Amino acid sequence: MTDKWIYLDNNATTMVAPEVAETIRVYLDKFWNPSSMYEPALALARELDDARASVARSLGAVHSDEIIFTSCATESNNAALVGGLRAALKADPKRRRIITSRVEHPAILEVCRRLEKDGYPVDWIGVDRAGKIDLRAYVQALRPGETALVSMMHANNETGVIFPIEKLSRLAKQTDPKITFHVDATQTVAKLPINLGAVPKSDADRGAFGYVDMLSFSGHKIHAPKGVGVLYVKRGTAFEHFMIGGHQEKGRRAGTENVPYIMGLAKALSLDLATLAESSARIEALRDRLQAGIEARVPYVVVNGKDAPRTPNTLNVAVYGAEGEAILALMSANGVCVSSGSACTSGSLEPSHVLTAMKVPEGALQGNFRFSLSRYTTEEEIDRALEVFVDVVATIRKTSSKWDDAKGEPIS
Amino acid sequence: MTDKWIYLDNNATTMVAPEVAETIRVYLDKFWNPSSMYEPALALARELDDARASVARSLGAVHSDEIIFTSCATESNNAALVGGLRAALKADPKRRRIITSRVEHPAILEVCRRLEKDGYPVDWIGVDRAGKIDLRAYVQALRPGETALVSMMHANNETGVIFPIEKLSRLAKQTDPKITFHVDATQTVAKLPINLGAVPKSDADRGAFGYVDMLSFSGHKIHAPKGVGVLYVKRGTAFEHFMIGGHQEKGRRAGTENVPYIMGLAKALSLDLATLAESSARIEALRDRLQAGIEARVPYVVVNGKDAPRTPNTLNVAVYGAEGEAILALMSANGVCVSSGSACTSGSLEPSHVLTAMKVPEGALQGNFRFSLSRYTTEEEIDRALEVFVDVVATIRKTSSKWDDAKGEPIS
Repeated sequence: MTDKWIYLDNNATTMVAPEVAETIRVYLDKFWNPSSMYEPALALARELDDARASVARSLGAVHSDEIIFTSCATESNNAALVGGLRAALKADPKRRRIITSRVEHPAILEVCRRLEKDGYPVDWIGVDRAGKIDLRAYVQALRPGETALVSMMHANNETGVIFPIEKLSRLAKQTDPKITFHVDATQTVAKLPINLGAVPKSDADRGAFGYVDMLSFSGHKIHAPKGVGVLYVKRGTAFEHFMIGGHQEKGRRAGTENVPYIMGLAKALSLDLATLAESSARIEALRDRLQAGIEARVPYVVVNGKDAPRTPNTLNVAVYGAEGEAILALMSANGVCVSSGSACTSGSLEPSHVLTAMKVPEGALQGNFRFSLSRYTTEEEIDRALEVFVDVVATIRKTSSKWDDAKGEPIS
Repeated sequence: MTDKWIYLDNNATTMVAPEVAETIRVYLDKFWNPSSMYEPALALARELDDARASVARSLGAVHSDEIIFTSCATESNNAALVGGLRAALKADPKRRRIITSRVEHPAILEVCRRLEKDGYPVDWIGVDRAGKIDLRAYVQALRPGETALVSMMHANNETGVIFPIEKLSRLAKQTDPKITFHVDATQTVAKLPINLGAVPKSDADRGAFGYVDMLSFSGHKIHAPKGVGVLYVKRGTAFEHFMIGGHQEKGRRAGTENVPYIMGLAKALSLDLATLAESSARIEALRDRLQAGIEARVPYVVVNGKDAPRTPNTLNVAVYGAEGEAILALMSANGVCVSSGSACTSGSLEPSHVLTAMKVPEGALQGNFRFSLSRYTTEEEIDRALEVFVDVVATIRKTSSKWDDAKGEPIS
């Protein structure tokens, strides 16, 4: 789909779907300010409302005004944490604790670090070797009357490991209904079922997000462009707006609306959801094919997160006796785009905070990277990527100081 | 330019220039994440750098990394105030005062109101009947060691009145070089000369913004789309980032870059600046033609701001004996788009805070609205808009309870 490039980095960003690009083209011409009072602007405001209603329906939100359009998931996450905490403090100054996990995206992690510095205690919940959340520590951290906010990602961007949001949100609400539960669903919207209107009948009732108060995601992970996101805020949730100014988005997010991208996001979501079950199964089969090929043909490889439920498109691999940077460079030289854990921290030489939290062994940590597929990924691309990967690892290991090529095993 | 509509509301938003829309189309296909490490993403990151350098050059910024791309002027303003204040407090907890004017855009006004509620004193500087800033009050408010931030708009969105930023910034820096001076230039970039690298030789040295530390503007007032803005932060300025997460924009604005719109904004700025002097003179002549026509043909009309320096494209009119809402509705019914003061507060029935601060008489306040032109405005459109306006006012006054049609004067 991407010229000569095989693009397997869809957790970093996705190509803009042609239908979405076409929608954006149309709305770039409809330049009116939807807050204006003349006919074409009012008509545009109605189209914006339709898009909002369509996004709300897609997510099972009960009211369309629960959907706030933002500029990206990072903004949605900042707004959820800062706006949620401000509102909680206003209602009760003793309610000032935040719970989150150690494996969140930087857009949650860094905001929580700053809030912690500012004097709001943060309970950082760890994960086990499989990437699963430490439920015991989580339950202990939930403090009635003190916990203001819980923020948990639905699935991890690096490993694809899915957190049991249905259960985590139920536990929070049962401990104290006034705790606000936020989900960063950037890696799961249009990949996993999400129904914000459904109260879970059991913890196995996947996607029943009725206990969730706020949820973030962005357009550019679902084949819309970078520069538009969503923050769902359930009616009645304690929330103060983050971006302050005009009265847009019913006073909850100032700034003139980016109509072309909002229409594009709504389009992308409807396209993705129309074929979710089918494309999800196909993507998962391709991911499993790639994983099986790697495990069969490359010794001393670890697949991180495979013992936990995972998003269908993500495959996180750690290779003994090879540097991740070298793998990425050689894969790229052979036309295959993959990445180390997160594009948002690429360029940094720190080992992944996610894999560190999972206690991935040192020898495997350095040779870590991620394949992430999309509905545009083909079987031919997967097979070619596997061949390239096998060759690249063999090439690197030949001269690696961490690999004994004669014995065919890592030097520990 | 806009089908059958005569669009004279360019201070609310502008049409996307065809060249800009074309640029965006091209970059929607280049979907790569500019933080990624493979070749096409690296190439895109270089193009992003070129755009940044081009914007920096356009504004006379000394270093291109002084340009931070944001999602809109509202975000830039929020970031400047919140980020500037946080950094100032960190350096010196006693430095906690803010100075701003009473006629700022809501994206400054509302943020300052919240900061004031949070315990940071705000000095609100008024304006006179002409819309000029109260210099005496301003100078008194500048307190060495206490004032953290000054935020002043370059020109007012409702009246077009220009504040003497060159002088205001010099006075601030002479009082205390550690005061951070921020300018909201949303209504003036690409309309008035701005040179951030030039220290003013005198207060009459228009556009010499060498004493300015931060400056905000948005794409959608300069014929780029809604959803992209700029915050200029001079090197060495005390600033903490507002949108927290990934390391984008050199760690000063998290969130994956909206490359298509950024490239579009850079394109729009270069297009506008290429013809600034010429189009500015042409726009001003059209505005003056409209103003002269109104003053000649409609009695009991006030032109707000005409006794102060104004942006060339703005004409704020207050009509005695007619409601502004009725004027807008009838103008719109006749194909002419104009607005009450600000689209960001439209729908609200409050009288304009700008005109209230200017002490516009009650009888004129209700009949207030704004024409704002662009380089796409034609003489034919202006002449047609004048005819419509004359008819509309006559029609409304016939049945207005505030107008004596027989005497041809307002009922006081």
